[in-house]
Amino acid sequence: MSELITKAKQLKQATKQLSVLSTEEKNEALAMIADALVAQQSYILQENEKDMIAGKENGLSPSLLDRLQLTEERIMQIVDGVRQVITLPDPVGETIEEWTRPNGLHLKQIRVPLGVVGMVYEARPNVTVDAASLCLKTGNAVLLRGSSSAIHSNKALVSVMQEALERSPIPADAIQLLEDTSRETAQHMFRLKEYLDVLIPRGGAGLIQSVVENATIPVLETGVGNCHIFIDESAQKQMAIDIVLNAKLQRPSVCNAVETVLIHEKWPYTKELLETLHEKGVELRADKQLATIYPFIREATEADWATEFLAPILAVKPVKNVEEAIEHIDRYGTKHSEAIISECNEHVQQFFARVDAAVLYHNASTRFTDGEQFGYGAEIGISTQKLHARGPMGLRAITTTKTLVYGNGQVRT
Amino acid sequence: MSELITKAKQLKQATKQLSVLSTEEKNEALAMIADALVAQQSYILQENEKDMIAGKENGLSPSLLDRLQLTEERIMQIVDGVRQVITLPDPVGETIEEWTRPNGLHLKQIRVPLGVVGMVYEARPNVTVDAASLCLKTGNAVLLRGSSSAIHSNKALVSVMQEALERSPIPADAIQLLEDTSRETAQHMFRLKEYLDVLIPRGGAGLIQSVVENATIPVLETGVGNCHIFIDESAQKQMAIDIVLNAKLQRPSVCNAVETVLIHEKWPYTKELLETLHEKGVELRADKQLATIYPFIREATEADWATEFLAPILAVKPVKNVEEAIEHIDRYGTKHSEAIISECNEHVQQFFARVDAAVLYHNASTRFTDGEQFGYGAEIGISTQKLHARGPMGLRAITTTKTLVYGNGQVRT
Repeated sequence: MSELITKAKQLKQATKQLSVLSTEEKNEALAMIADALVAQQSYILQENEKDMIAGKENGLSPSLLDRLQLTEERIMQIVDGVRQVITLPDPVGETIEEWTRPNGLHLKQIRVPLGVVGMVYEARPNVTVDAASLCLKTGNAVLLRGSSSAIHSNKALVSVMQEALERSPIPADAIQLLEDTSRETAQHMFRLKEYLDVLIPRGGAGLIQSVVENATIPVLETGVGNCHIFIDESAQKQMAIDIVLNAKLQRPSVCNAVETVLIHEKWPYTKELLETLHEKGVELRADKQLATIYPFIREATEADWATEFLAPILAVKPVKNVEEAIEHIDRYGTKHSEAIISECNEHVQQFFARVDAAVLYHNASTRFTDGEQFGYGAEIGISTQKLHARGPMGLRAITTTKTLVYGNGQVRT
Repeated sequence: MSELITKAKQLKQATKQLSVLSTEEKNEALAMIADALVAQQSYILQENEKDMIAGKENGLSPSLLDRLQLTEERIMQIVDGVRQVITLPDPVGETIEEWTRPNGLHLKQIRVPLGVVGMVYEARPNVTVDAASLCLKTGNAVLLRGSSSAIHSNKALVSVMQEALERSPIPADAIQLLEDTSRETAQHMFRLKEYLDVLIPRGGAGLIQSVVENATIPVLETGVGNCHIFIDESAQKQMAIDIVLNAKLQRPSVCNAVETVLIHEKWPYTKELLETLHEKGVELRADKQLATIYPFIREATEADWATEFLAPILAVKPVKNVEEAIEHIDRYGTKHSEAIISECNEHVQQFFARVDAAVLYHNASTRFTDGEQFGYGAEIGISTQKLHARGPMGLRAITTTKTLVYGNGQVRT
């Protein structure tokens, strides 16, 4: 039998024990994982070194190599993450709603684990541990499908975690790494409805699209953020400049960074904003109108409005009013995070009612779209779809519900 | 441009108006639809007659013809359904959660429409109106893809509804029927991510599988219910008999009917139960053990345990204990509705903790898995998947969320 099927069966088997564990038992197991990762640090670094050597030989880019690399410090960050998950409240078992019907049936909807979660991700080995700890905390088993470039690191991390689980209340089989990283096996995994309950892809647009295109298992889609900030006529000068700089430059490579700024044509501080951005090293692309006025601005192409630059590049467009800003976002946005900077309550309400996105901001940076920043404590991804969970996904997003119905002989008439 | 794309664009355009309508405006439009359906009754019946004639010519089965047929009484039931939806509370705009972060950001998660819902369904023309009224009540636009056998009925119903909307606050474009019922166009529809937010298939297993297999749009899967009742050693005789008869016979063709009864081998009333079932015309299939004792019982095949009979046929199996019952359900169940009849609290708890299904019953019939019976007022389907909504889906299931974040200049550090 193939590795995939064998491991999928073991995972499904493990869910039987996982679903009845107490929070204390799950936390005990997570603490053992944290300790084991510390104790086995040098083994993990040594295996990671193999991936680094192979990566250099295969010509991986410096930024990919950086994502792949583990250091003592990075392992400690990973361990801190596991310890953080231990402190979070356990959503499993929570009563969501409870009600009684006229015929006396008593209904109670409670939160339960999803079952087996399939994580599909790219280079960064920290996802291996992050995903495993979030899944175990919620009583889920997890099939980890990382990339071939991180195979030695992932094998080391998973074997250390499994060894720790051997001495814990959680079965070691609850975490499995798919070592066969071939495309064919991935395709098979995406359709393994009998064993997997959900797929969570994390990585670039290509990876996510491949999962969405090929999966028959429900997917929690994460990803692309073409985020906008609309600066209204009444926006405060310094606030607008600070927010745009933060949203573009604090970490340009992430999905909640801003990609296009829409400026009300009567806002008086456009010049100051654009010059500050230019000074800070942001490459600006704008309408012909602005490109003619400012020598440092390049004329934007149609493609620029639709691009998630993930770099210090910003598209800029003057708009007549809030309606035109909304229309632009409707057309080019990816329903991730959209902001309005304004002192006009009516415009804020209009923007909040009409813009269709996971998170809408008034007078704040789009960079706050994040599980940690929202107060969820941890994050398994940011959902850009509308079903199940929208926006940052914390522990609750990897649970489902059960409705328990208590009767005394009721039949339907 | 193809009909599909033209209509999909109109629907997306309509969502802009739909998302800002008040509950009163939506109810006003629904009342106009109800009145128009009454007024245009004879036109609808006349168009339905064309489908009936074609259906007979094409050799549709009597049960399919029955599903297809409209009568004055059935139209009144459909109209009553619309009027019922008017009375239901509107979930759109509800605040789900509201909280403030240490940095002063105030977050408010509210319920909003999904956008454009794609309904994919078979013969019954009542689904056309049911789905449209549930979608409009929640501010969603809806693309209806019914079967070719009901095309005249569906065209008549949709044109009557659209005409009513012309005089209402809801744009008439918010309801669209896909008249091209070809397989190719359906496949295209299932992948139209740019315009459709969700697909809801309702119908037989073949239809649902085709949607799940081919869709790239998120699917709210409904459907198959291979439901079990476990009769524990301590189960009351009359209660067990009444519940099994109700769950099997009250409406055998539906997904929440029972298909297999698991009986604790020490339960003293097996004989009475089986004889009563036989007298009531239920065909019984059981283990060799029982088939040898009772001449009216046929020996079950492996396939019988996995079959949703949707008919007065019942599989029966003696089990040693609650654990064996759970194992059987784990293996053959479809995670829909599962019941335990027992006077032992410990066994009920074990069953509720271990069985993985949308709805679990203690001492009640599985037939209650239904939006109306749960008190949701209406139902767009019963979800058999674990994401977004599990079990009966009412109005809330066709909404998503938005998080509104109120700041005063916060940037991320």
